[in-house]
Amino acid sequence: MTSAISFTVHHTSGQARAATLTTTHGDVPTPAFMPIATQGSVKGVTPDEVRALGSHIILANAYHLYLRPGADTIERLGGLHTFMGWDGPILTDSGGFQVFSLGGLRRVTDVGVEFTSHIDGSRHVVSPEDAMRYQEALGVDVAMALDQCPSYGDNDENVRLAMERTHRWAERCRAAHTRPDQALFGIVQGGHDLEQRAASAATLTDIDFDGYAVGGLSVGEPRDTMHRIGAFTAPLLPKDKLRYLMGVGSPLDLVEAVGWGIDMFDCALPTRVARHGGIYRAEGRIAITSAKYREDTGPLEDGCDCYACTHFSAAYVHHLFHAKELLAGRLATLHNLRFYQRLMSQLREAITADTLAAFQEDFRARYTPSDDAARLAQLGKWSASRSGS
Amino acid sequence: MTSAISFTVHHTSGQARAATLTTTHGDVPTPAFMPIATQGSVKGVTPDEVRALGSHIILANAYHLYLRPGADTIERLGGLHTFMGWDGPILTDSGGFQVFSLGGLRRVTDVGVEFTSHIDGSRHVVSPEDAMRYQEALGVDVAMALDQCPSYGDNDENVRLAMERTHRWAERCRAAHTRPDQALFGIVQGGHDLEQRAASAATLTDIDFDGYAVGGLSVGEPRDTMHRIGAFTAPLLPKDKLRYLMGVGSPLDLVEAVGWGIDMFDCALPTRVARHGGIYRAEGRIAITSAKYREDTGPLEDGCDCYACTHFSAAYVHHLFHAKELLAGRLATLHNLRFYQRLMSQLREAITADTLAAFQEDFRARYTPSDDAARLAQLGKWSASRSGS
Repeated sequence: MTSAISFTVHHTSGQARAATLTTTHGDVPTPAFMPIATQGSVKGVTPDEVRALGSHIILANAYHLYLRPGADTIERLGGLHTFMGWDGPILTDSGGFQVFSLGGLRRVTDVGVEFTSHIDGSRHVVSPEDAMRYQEALGVDVAMALDQCPSYGDNDENVRLAMERTHRWAERCRAAHTRPDQALFGIVQGGHDLEQRAASAATLTDIDFDGYAVGGLSVGEPRDTMHRIGAFTAPLLPKDKLRYLMGVGSPLDLVEAVGWGIDMFDCALPTRVARHGGIYRAEGRIAITSAKYREDTGPLEDGCDCYACTHFSAAYVHHLFHAKELLAGRLATLHNLRFYQRLMSQLREAITADTLAAFQEDFRARYTPSDDAARLAQLGKWSASRSGS
Repeated sequence: MTSAISFTVHHTSGQARAATLTTTHGDVPTPAFMPIATQGSVKGVTPDEVRALGSHIILANAYHLYLRPGADTIERLGGLHTFMGWDGPILTDSGGFQVFSLGGLRRVTDVGVEFTSHIDGSRHVVSPEDAMRYQEALGVDVAMALDQCPSYGDNDENVRLAMERTHRWAERCRAAHTRPDQALFGIVQGGHDLEQRAASAATLTDIDFDGYAVGGLSVGEPRDTMHRIGAFTAPLLPKDKLRYLMGVGSPLDLVEAVGWGIDMFDCALPTRVARHGGIYRAEGRIAITSAKYREDTGPLEDGCDCYACTHFSAAYVHHLFHAKELLAGRLATLHNLRFYQRLMSQLREAITADTLAAFQEDFRARYTPSDDAARLAQLGKWSASRSGS
């Protein structure tokens, strides 16, 4: 590899790892959670705020930025870091998933994906080589290979064909990729079948990417299915490369997944539920819009050090949501992202101190899971969960 | 007066005055512009940000807060300052204007106003004494007397009756008001007739309020009519009391009105047009959504020191508006409020330096007026211009 990106494992505890992803825009201590800046903005908050929450890397969507304002426009304006005012590491999803979830009238051939824009209905063709070119133009630190993500419930044959095409595209992405200051990650597919997952992990490992993502999960399958596939797949990936579980997940998912050896995550949950009044707490998620918070003078979460919790009462945030004030979603977003980043920090510490198993046990005992999948589906098209924040 | 509020004029230049309003929550250098926090939040921005923009006092609406979450609720939660996290001075509009612009099925008698809530259709009666009680419960620094604001175009008889009722209510408000740490301002009515305005100013002056507002303007009348009434009325008010021009106005209006001796303003314009991409500049207002800013790497306004201008390009804000990102309105709001506060600061300096006439002449020459009234009407119910930010 000629990439300026490196990945250094400092400590392992079982399969779990505490490590550092080094990029030309700074270091990312892992396990890490990436806030989602779909269109070049973490909804409602500034890059300064995202940084202050303890975020070291963010995710943007090449599909969205390609359509608007255009990868070429962003390149002329100095690249995505300059454009959006975030000087830390950025990873872009290649657009494969978004084409399948948002694009209309799509047709997939070995050439690439043909689809209509969800914005204006215009017709586009994006090949694996195009996906590399656009992400290089954006100038991000980590580009993702173009993949074909089957829908949950697709038959075995379709899942296998999508995986095989993903493998062929992975080869072409690797060959087309040129920027030495940009890492390229491959994406494991194979649906919900362990054998296919093993085959996909082996094939992609042979291609020698800078990091590996587990894709095609969190697409509507039951939680235990996702956990079974994730826990099986992660350890099959190279130990010296970063492992990224795409589109996952709830706090409980993250706590489990670091135990499988996953290093990085992104998910719309903390930001999307925030805009609807869902507030994460150590004991589980609450709806701040509930009447019981109407005169609650305490913070959103006791002991939280986020801007919302240190400046405003739960009663005020409750009022802001009922009054449909813009500040409501902003304060809830700040809190939820801080909750996620604090959790990642605790997970890193637990791995380093070899106390991960105890931390997990404690977390499972105190945290009441929400039906996150149902909630996310209710808030927006489920399959778009990885495409918007 | 037993009020802890005082007003000290430091310098006069023609009718214009540079002064200080002193409250228990801090000093307000005047001329001053109050950002609007209708429901206890300047839309999309935090109190820290409002302060950093150079704001010394904000306006909230007693009508909105009475209906939601309730003045009693806010009182139990420690008052409006604590509730919304703003420790500087707050003025509340009494609700008179909002009842007339937002309330449904209203009936006005000498008892007070009877109306249905714009939120849930519930029936309410608010007397002048109630208006005092609610504003005292909110604990704001400046309460406004309950007034009856006639519509633009009402016949002379109705305008006169509304004015006379406003005078009777003003007496009752003065008599009912008890908080020594809260100032009470009277509101001059009298429509667009100079004689009535003179009569109203004289009647209210006799009641001895802590400050005086010119109400009933900026309700749809032509700009020169508003200027004629404002310029005539302001000098009739006591020289040793603060003069507040309600619901006004555009940058040009402010530049003119300080010359009449007006000390304080509030207006929805800078925040409301911000959320639709209207950006104030020294030369006039622009639409940042215009295609010509698509690749503009400069700031929203050259030389501006606001957070938006020092961190992001016009091209990025253009993109945020087109992508319907929440950050768009927030950045535009920060810029426009900074523009207004910088203008107020320049006006204060010009008065102190006895250069106001030259400043006004220069401003008129370089600033191209927008059709603000038409624009505001287009963005929302015109008559609600004082009721929302």
